[in-house]
This record gives sequence, structure tokens and C-alpha cells, in this order.
Amino acid sequence: MSKREAIERLLNPESIAIVGVSKDFTSISGKPMKNLIRHQFQGQIYPVNPKYEKIEDFTCYPSLIDIPGEVDVALIAVSSKRMMQILSECEQKNIRSVILFGSGFAETGEEGERLQEEVLEKAKKAGITILGPNCIGLLNVKKSIPLGFSTSFETEEGFLSGNVGFASQSGALGFSLFGLAQEENIGFSQVINTGNQIDLHTLDCIDYMLEDEGTDVVAGYLEGIPDGEMLIRLAKRSKALKKPLIVLKAGRSEIGKKAAMSHTASLTGSDETFQAIAKQYGLVIANDVDDMIDLMKVFSRGKQSNGNRVVTISNSGAAGIAMADYSEPLGLELVRLPNETQAKVEEIIPPYGSALNPIDITAQALKEQHIFTDTLEALINEDEVDAIVVQTTFGGELGQKICKKIAEIDKTTEKPIVVTITGTTEITGEGRTILEKASVPVYTTSYKTMVAIKQLADFSRFCLSHEEEAHTHGQVGKSEDTSGIWTEVRVKKELSSLGIRIPQGTLIKNREHLQEVKANIPYPVVCKGISKDVLHKTDADSVKVNIKNPAELEEAYESIISSIGNYNPDANIDGVLAEEMIQDESVEMFIGVKEDPQFGPLIVCGLGGIFVEVLKDISIRRAPITDKEAFAMLEELKGYLLLKGVRGGSKRDIQALTEALVRISQFALTHHGRIQEMDINPLWVFEEGKGVAALDGIIVWKKNEEAVVNAK
Amino acid sequence: MSKREAIERLLNPESIAIVGVSKDFTSISGKPMKNLIRHQFQGQIYPVNPKYEKIEDFTCYPSLIDIPGEVDVALIAVSSKRMMQILSECEQKNIRSVILFGSGFAETGEEGERLQEEVLEKAKKAGITILGPNCIGLLNVKKSIPLGFSTSFETEEGFLSGNVGFASQSGALGFSLFGLAQEENIGFSQVINTGNQIDLHTLDCIDYMLEDEGTDVVAGYLEGIPDGEMLIRLAKRSKALKKPLIVLKAGRSEIGKKAAMSHTASLTGSDETFQAIAKQYGLVIANDVDDMIDLMKVFSRGKQSNGNRVVTISNSGAAGIAMADYSEPLGLELVRLPNETQAKVEEIIPPYGSALNPIDITAQALKEQHIFTDTLEALINEDEVDAIVVQTTFGGELGQKICKKIAEIDKTTEKPIVVTITGTTEITGEGRTILEKASVPVYTTSYKTMVAIKQLADFSRFCLSHEEEAHTHGQVGKSEDTSGIWTEVRVKKELSSLGIRIPQGTLIKNREHLQEVKANIPYPVVCKGISKDVLHKTDADSVKVNIKNPAELEEAYESIISSIGNYNPDANIDGVLAEEMIQDESVEMFIGVKEDPQFGPLIVCGLGGIFVEVLKDISIRRAPITDKEAFAMLEELKGYLLLKGVRGGSKRDIQALTEALVRISQFALTHHGRIQEMDINPLWVFEEGKGVAALDGIIVWKKNEEAVVNAK
Repeated sequence: MSKREAIERLLNPESIAIVGVSKDFTSISGKPMKNLIRHQFQGQIYPVNPKYEKIEDFTCYPSLIDIPGEVDVALIAVSSKRMMQILSECEQKNIRSVILFGSGFAETGEEGERLQEEVLEKAKKAGITILGPNCIGLLNVKKSIPLGFSTSFETEEGFLSGNVGFASQSGALGFSLFGLAQEENIGFSQVINTGNQIDLHTLDCIDYMLEDEGTDVVAGYLEGIPDGEMLIRLAKRSKALKKPLIVLKAGRSEIGKKAAMSHTASLTGSDETFQAIAKQYGLVIANDVDDMIDLMKVFSRGKQSNGNRVVTISNSGAAGIAMADYSEPLGLELVRLPNETQAKVEEIIPPYGSALNPIDITAQALKEQHIFTDTLEALINEDEVDAIVVQTTFGGELGQKICKKIAEIDKTTEKPIVVTITGTTEITGEGRTILEKASVPVYTTSYKTMVAIKQLADFSRFCLSHEEEAHTHGQVGKSEDTSGIWTEVRVKKELSSLGIRIPQGTLIKNREHLQEVKANIPYPVVCKGISKDVLHKTDADSVKVNIKNPAELEEAYESIISSIGNYNPDANIDGVLAEEMIQDESVEMFIGVKEDPQFGPLIVCGLGGIFVEVLKDISIRRAPITDKEAFAMLEELKGYLLLKGVRGGSKRDIQALTEALVRISQFALTHHGRIQEMDINPLWVFEEGKGVAALDGIIVWKKNEEAVVNAK
Repeated sequence: MSKREAIERLLNPESIAIVGVSKDFTSISGKPMKNLIRHQFQGQIYPVNPKYEKIEDFTCYPSLIDIPGEVDVALIAVSSKRMMQILSECEQKNIRSVILFGSGFAETGEEGERLQEEVLEKAKKAGITILGPNCIGLLNVKKSIPLGFSTSFETEEGFLSGNVGFASQSGALGFSLFGLAQEENIGFSQVINTGNQIDLHTLDCIDYMLEDEGTDVVAGYLEGIPDGEMLIRLAKRSKALKKPLIVLKAGRSEIGKKAAMSHTASLTGSDETFQAIAKQYGLVIANDVDDMIDLMKVFSRGKQSNGNRVVTISNSGAAGIAMADYSEPLGLELVRLPNETQAKVEEIIPPYGSALNPIDITAQALKEQHIFTDTLEALINEDEVDAIVVQTTFGGELGQKICKKIAEIDKTTEKPIVVTITGTTEITGEGRTILEKASVPVYTTSYKTMVAIKQLADFSRFCLSHEEEAHTHGQVGKSEDTSGIWTEVRVKKELSSLGIRIPQGTLIKNREHLQEVKANIPYPVVCKGISKDVLHKTDADSVKVNIKNPAELEEAYESIISSIGNYNPDANIDGVLAEEMIQDESVEMFIGVKEDPQFGPLIVCGLGGIFVEVLKDISIRRAPITDKEAFAMLEELKGYLLLKGVRGGSKRDIQALTEALVRISQFALTHHGRIQEMDINPLWVFEEGKGVAALDGIIVWKKNEEAVVNAK
């Protein structure tokens, strides 16, 4: 049974056993049964507890074995110590899906961890799928089947079903978020809490939801990332299906990470890496619970935005100013309307209003509702506008009428319409509800509205970009000797074979060699001592610049050899590299490669000097990358202005730099699993058309044992 | 009558006339009367409209003159064209306070602007105070007196009075914010909308509220700043009274500013300046409507926080992680508890919980309510903790019990307790209301909670800081010739008299002078051509470095004179400055002075080079500043690490740099109103103990006419 099938089964049981059920329906072990009754579960319910004969009208069985019919899902609310026995009974009874509510596993320490492993092993052998342990359960919203003890299941109103699927590692957070979203009339298809996720994890659930026909928006709360490759695969699938994958990722701070480990025994990757991966693969990032709900709302409407050009209509000048204030830093454009359209708007609104975007239709709209809706109608067919924001403070009957009309207009157009209603529930609540029920995104503040539009536009753009995927070009052969440390000379040879320019140079191996070559060196040169045992050349005083003739070369050679000897008498010296002095004006970059335990080979770049040391101004992508991605990496840097050419500085060869990035990213992929760290530093970037040159570099290879394990 | 008295009178009328009243209580001109009736106004209501004889049970008068009794406040809902006549009637009837609802003034163009001026002039002569025009009105919440037509006045529930005063330039935003805050049980003393604020403006209202006994928290929504000096005076008063002044400032973006001008004809200052002033004088900045409500909530409780050390208690591990995640970037410290306290907590919570901050008391607290409250009790007397966060997802009766207990504990301690309840209104709403009514700040997300604590801690720290105010030391004499442009030599002379080191130098005025001094110059020197007509010396090629002897000096002299001649044949040349070459390693800074139209002389500083050009990394304060403020300016810079000494670089003379900043700020104050711009660039900062030196500088003085107008 695939995991997708297992989840399908968990969500759609026709018969449910509840092991360790309590008659006290206010207790954790009583609630799951109460919830099934409350929401009128149509299948079989089998309470299991040797203490009782009957619970309400249901026969209670001493053990799973004694149940007369088949059992699709067993909810297990017994102590962790009895778990192995219960699993045996499940096996005997051919129960293939269980939900473990209890704690007392990995989160409690070593003993619990051992028990957890035993349980998992036993379940795998028996072909049983486990949700949990240490979880609150799940909810099939479409069918109104709650399996668990969340307080959100205790509503008497029933659930609002819709197109949002939500997988959460935390039960408390997951179901309270669900409850809050339901209050704003966001409909769900399913909510699943994975807890200690020893078998089914959040990404499995996300995978199921992406493929689920009834789900158009998938959201996940993740404390750790169980499988980096899988997350990337899911992100690509999200793009292909145009179903946004919204992720709220916890454990971003150092203390947060510690708490995450004691909480669910999960490892949290570095936040910078995660953010970079999210950007590269188009995950939609939520920063907190509110943000997640706001995003669910705008995406569940299912519209796309063709760009960043927004027009706003409001009956309050202040709201117009606020929207303009927020749009600028968000990168939204309050578009200047074509004259014709502006004239049309001018005819509709009062003379003291403003038809200049942000459009102010004034409080006159209080009297004449058509002003609002006519203005909106005038804009929905305007090609220069990608999204429309409507802001109102109107309540009561007038507010409701306007909202009904907005909802009608929204149905007639593919253009996103997002509404801000700043007002109390008492006065404006009904209008808001009208919009929510029509799936028109509505927020209480202009800031939330503008953020929602921006995220919609970003995801739409990402989905529409037909970027080919980066592939290795195949011209990079695997080196035979990928072990130990490659110093400058070896690294440069490799870079040169990748088509990256390096300075012309000669490695002078010894004094005889020196005599042989000294006449043919193209002076002036730089001399550098090459030794695996000297990683920072300046520490060993083993660099001499501006060597102009054979005599100076001899002097430099002797001086470097003796400096290295003083620095480390045992150092192996490969020789002295005499290299052409490149004198063109340049900007200094660095390019690095590192292996992330979750996401594999990453390529990192940044400007040198203070940009790295003071500003930590770097950009990260998973290798390999395309030209376009390489360019995006550069654009992201604060120091990008230096490459573009700021005051006085000329424009640099950005094209050559992106090519170098792409090639090094391919190299990183080719050697995936073997590179421990790689640094090209500095890489000089010359004026446009003059290329780049790698001035120094180092690769530290993984020890062979590690490499074997990591390589794919 | 002072403005404070005028506002007091507007807020507390015993008799009210409504001019231009309509019988249609759903219209703008009918609503004010309906609202007074709805909220059972206890004084006299005099409707005025020649069309009616009676409105409900009230006699309606043809004009103000016909009213038999005295009138404290007249609400005026007639067209702007009739305004002058109505004012005459007010004068005749001795009505001293009026509220003008109507639009049709400055916001409509030139004609409206003229009318507005006439109205104001007439009112001043007659001793009449005006609120508005183009405003919705005001609300005395304590006495339940609504004067105006806001939809927020249409509530049947009555208003919740409390200690928050709110002045808003925008009526729609102001009263919808008020309504939303009331829904969260935030009590107000008064809300005033100033609209076009031709007479009373937002700062007048804030001034009144700060002095009002019933108001402990003052909030303002400002589109423009009518009076920069006054805002600073109010900020100082806010600090002295420990009444936070929360400001939501609109018009921060370029488009926002344009909208602000067409909307209320107000000028918006530069956002960077405003942010700097807010930081310097302790204004609490709200970023949007939500944020403003969140801040009102935490401040209205009236507690102070002694610092940034926070402990969090939650029943969900996820919430603990989230709070840790948010605290780090906010600068809050999740404090490590002393062993003794931690042991106490360990005894209370289940063994699989965590007594390590963030404290996780686990879902066991669902069964045993005392776990929550005992843990809280154990922490309120812990000196190492400045504020406590409680997070719960519990609803129903249990949730209510816990909330009641938290409210009780909150009363017993001066330590701030802030609560997050993440859950739906249906399930957790009642618990939330219990806390709100007890004025315990409660939020729906951890992020909002952590932001609230951070703002509380910041304001408390600001109030507790006994910083002396910066004064001019008096040693700076006013220069006589503050006109035109001061070039390098003159500026350096001034800086030297301020005690700021400049390089030793000689201004060589002509060839004879050159012959006279050339033997006594302390070589090596730098030579620079000095001319008012050459502002950027490199453009004219008028700098020569490393001049080692008299012969080279002569050569440099001739070359510079001829370069300037080539650059600008009409240039006046003061001479060539021969200056010692300072060769100590240094960090380059710039210090500038500019006059802000709203806030007067500002001092600006930053690191040179890319920090300014690429990163726009500057810090701004109003002059004069103290040592402490100068240091804070530096700390704010991203490039501060370079001064502190990053990787390889040594620590710089920060002490000498702050002294230079203080002295230049005093100079700026002394010449307030006369300086157009001033630049010291570069100012070199040497290693600790070695001081600073000003290498170049310029002052552009205002033209005399302007200076006279601006000087105080």
C-alpha cells in the first residue's frame, strides 16, 4: 500500500475502533468517540475497553479481536507501554491504519525512542500505517469525519468544506489555525496532524493533498524537514499543478531549534538555506498563523494575477494613502491609468474625489452605492491593471449591498479583486461574511490586503515562468583523485577546464626548474607558495607581488620557501606559482559550494570584503542552476549595485559572472556527496565584455568513507 | 480661551445646536441628531432648519439666532457656501465652539482654499474654535456624547470607556479603528477627528489628552505634521508623564505623499527624518491599524517592563518554538531561569514537559488546570524575568477558569503578563473576553504578543533613562560672515576652533607666498586647489598627493592652478592648500547637517564609500545631541562593525568620533536657520586613542533673506 493510498484510507474509514476509550467524554480518551457521535459518523463505531460493556448505545468490546466486523481505522488512546500488544491485535485483526494519540515516545528520551523504533518496525512488518504518535488526529472536512480530540472538533455548527488541505506537525497549532480560518469562512478539504510522525510525515500528507482533486491550496506547518529532496519534488509539483504550497516553518531561531528538538525530536535545517530553497522552488512562505490564514484566503479564490500593477478604490483618503505607503516597499505598482479609463472614472465619482490612482470616491458613496460598483466595473476590463483593491468602511445595509455587488462582479472577471473592510463585526461583519462566503478575499487592514496581492502576484509569476530546469552539460568528467585537499593550482586547472579564466602561470617546482623557466616568465608576476599545509597564504607570508625580472623572481622564490619553512617546518611544498599580474579594474566576488544535509549541494555567492564580513550579504541556491537563476542570485545581493555600476564605477561583466556560477554549480552537482567545501575567492569581475578571472581557490574533499555514504 | 480649554468645551457640551439638520436620520445631516438621541444625551438639543417646525419631540429653529437658550457647541452640516453666514450667526449668539462636517474647502482647490482662509479669519476674530471642516466629529467616550455621523456611533451597545485617547486626522480610519478596538474591549476616554484641521489640529488634541487625567495612553493618526517643534515637546511630555504616545503616520511613500496632498492639503515630511525623530524622542510607532490596536492594548494595562528578559509558558511545543523564533529578531531574550526556579517549575509540570524556557507544560494541563496557574505563580516573583508570556489553546469552561485565574494573578504583580490565545471565538472567545475586561493584554498570535512585549520594554526603558538633555556649551561664537559658501580652509578653521583635529596645513596664496614658505613645509604633503567655484576637486584635477620636496611643491602648485583654469577660466582661486599627509590607518566617515522644514537642524552621519552610495546606511538625529545619542547613532549603522573592528581591523576611536558629532551638532544649533547644508567628508577615524581628523568640508549658507525668516 503506497503512502497516498494509506492516507486516503485514513481519511475515509467506514468502520472505526477506539481502543482505550473512556466513558468520560470530556477526557482525551473519551473525546474521539464523542466527536464521531457529534458529527454523526455514518459508519461503524467500535469502542474497545474491557472495563465497559456498553458506551451510550454502542457495544464496547474487551479487545480489538472481539469486534465482529472489519475495522478500517483504529484510534489508539492507551499508554505507550501497551502499544506493542495492541499492534499485535491489529495485525491479527488485519487492521491496516492506526492513529496513535499517546505521548511517551521519542520526545521523552532514550527509552521512549527505543519503544518508538520497535513500534515502527512491528508496524512495517505487519503492513500497518501509523499516524502519530503524540498527535491530536485528523479531520476529513468534506465528509465531516473527525478522528481525534481537538477542541476544534467540538463545534456544534459543522465544518465548512472547501479547497484547502492542511498538514501540521503540531496538533495544537494546526487545529487552532484551522478553527480561526473557519471563522473567516475558509473551507478545507482535510486537516492532518502528524505529531512525532514516525511513519506518515507532513510531506507525505502534502504529497497526498497536491494530488487530491478536491484540494487546490496546500498548507503545511513544519518543524523539521523530513526529506529535502521530497520537499523540492513537491514544490515542483505545486508549480506544475498551479496549486500553491504554503509553508509555515518553525525553529528558525537558535532557541527555537533547541525547543524543536526537545519537542518532536526533529532536526531543523539552517533558516537561510530554507529561505533560499523556498525562493528557488516557489514555496509560499507564511511568517505566522495570521499570515497563513491570510494566504489561504487569497489563494483559495483560485485566481491568478498577471503582474504587480494594482489599482485601489476607496471611500477614505486615508486608506488610499495607506495602500500607497504599503505598496512601495512590497514592490507593487499603483499603476497610472490610461487617460480614457481615468476619464471614465472621473465621470462616475464626485468632483472633489480623485480619479488618480489611489482612487478616492469619497464619502459621497454613502449616499450613492453605484459610485462604488460603477467604478469597479469601469476597471475590470482595463488591461493595464492586474489586480483591484476595494476598500470600504461602510456597514449596515449599504455595506451589505455593496458587498453583494462586489461578489457578483468578482464572478464575471478573471482579474483578482481583493477587499479591505476596516470596521467592527457589529457594523461591517455581515458584509464581510457575504464576501467570504463568495470566496472573495477580504481583510480588515490595508496592509494585509496589499501583502496578499503581492504573494498572489509572486506565485502567479512563478507558475507562468517557463524556465527550463538546469542540467549538467555532461562535459564535466569526474576527477579520479577527489580526496584530501585541492590547493590553488589543482583547483585552477579544474576551473580552467570548466571554461573559467585563470591567470597565466607557471608552478616552479624547485630551484632547477626555476633556472629553466625564469627567462620565459611574462613579467610582472605575482608569486605564491603552494602547500596543502598553508591554507591562508598571508599567515605564512608566502605571497610576493609585482616581481619584475628574473633576479627579483629568484629572490621571491627563496623568500617564500624560507617563510613557509618558518611558518611550518613540516609543510609539504608543491612549489611557487608565478602568475601574471592582472591589472584591470575589477569587483571582487566569492563563489562557494557546500553540502547541505537536507538539500544536497548548494552554491553560494557574494561580493568580497565588507559585504561578506560586515553585511553577510550572500545568496544561496541549490545546484545546479540556470543562467536565469544565477542572475537572480546576483540581483538579490545588496552589493549588486557595485556590479551594475554605481556612481563612478563602470558596469561589470555580469554575463561572464553568471556563466561562471552556472558552471561551478554543475561541478558541484557532478561531485555531489564528495565535496565538503569549495571556495573560489576572489573571483575578479572585470568591465562588461572583459570577463572574469579566478584568482584563488580551494576544495576540501570528504573523507572516502563519508563520501561513499553520501554519494548518490 | 486656550486650545486646551476649547477642546475641553467641545468634549463636554451641555447644549448643542445642529445646523442644517435633516429629518432623514439615515442621511449625513440627520445622523448627528439621531446619535445624540440614541446615546441619551442629557443636555439640550437644538435642531436648526427653516424647513421644519419639529423633529421628533424637539422644536426645530429657523436659525441659530432663534434658539432661546445658550449653545455650547454648534454642529454645522450645511454647504461650504453658507459657512460665512452661519459663522456670523454663531458670533451673534456667542457660540464659541463649532464642528464643521462639510467638505468643499482646501481639498477641492484654490477657491475652496480661499474660502477656508476667510472662514478661519472670521472665526479667529470672533473667538470661535473650529473642529474640521471635512470631519466626522468627535466622541466623549466617558460621558457617551457622540458629536457627528460615524457609523461607529450607531452601536446599540453603548461605548466602553477607558484610558486611551485617540486623535485622528482621518475620520473613516479613526472611527473604524476605534470600533475595532472596542470589539477587543479596549476602553477610550475620547476620540477626536480633525479633518482639514484649519484650527484645531491633531497635535492640539494630543496635547489635551496628555494632560487629561482620565487618559493614560494617547494615540494619533497623522497625515502631516502641523508643527515639528510641538511634536517634540509632546514627545518629551509623554516621557515625563510616562504616558505613551503612539503614532500612526501616513504618507510615507512617494505616491502616498501625493495622495496626502490632494486629500487634506497637508505636507508630509520625509519618512527617514520622522523615524529618526520618533526614535530620538521616544514616540511609539504603529505600522498599521492592527498594530495600533495591539499597542493600545498592551499600554492601556499601565504596567512597565524592566527589561527584555521574557519567560514563556505554553501548552503547545509549537507555540514555544514560535515565540523563540520571534524573540530573537525582536531583541527579546528568552532568559535562562535560575536553577532553583527551574526546579520549582519541574515539580509542577509533567515529566515529559520542559521546564527550560520556553516552558512547555504539555496538554496534561487540559486535565489539571493548576499546572498552568501554579507555573505562572512560580514565576511572578522571579527577579531574572521582566515579562511573562502565557500561551494557551484551551477553550470552553477550562479555558475560562484559567483566564480568570490569570487575571487574578495579574492583579497581584507589577510584572507584565501578556497572553496568547490561539483559537476561535466560538471556543476560546469567552476566555479572551475575561482577560480583556480585566485589561490583561491578550493576542491571537505569538508574533503579536512578542511585538507588544518588545514595544512595552522599549518604552519603559526610554522612560526610565535619565538622560540629560543636550545643550550648547556656549563656547561657539556666532561667526560674522555666515553667507555664501565656506570652502575647505574656512570650514577647517571653524572645526579646529570646535576642537576637532584638522591636518596641519598652509594656504599658499600666490607664487611669492610659495617662495616664502616652501622651505618650511613639513613634507610629504597633499596639495589641493581652493576655490568656491570648484566644489568637487577631483573634477578639476586639483589635488596632488605625496609631494616630497620644494621642487615637487612648485610643480604641483603650477599644475593645480592651470588645471583649475582649464576647468573653469572664471574661477576665483583662493590658493593652494599644502597639508600634512596623515598616513595612519583609518575608517572614513561623513558627518552632515541639514535643516528640516518641520524639525529644524538635523545631524546626519554614516560611513563613507559604498556604505552611503550603495547601502544608504545613515543615521539621523535632531541637533543638538548628547554623547549618548551620538553613540546610539553610530550603533545604528550597519557599518558600525567596521568602527568596532571586524576580522583583522582594529577598534577605532569611537569616543573621539562621538565628541566630534556632539560638537558639530552644537554648531548646527548655533547656526539654526542659516545653514543650508554642511558636509564634513571624509572624517577619518583612527585607532582607539588616536582621535579623528576632518580631511575636507563645505558649508553652504542660506541666502540672507531666507536666513532671516528661518532663524529664531
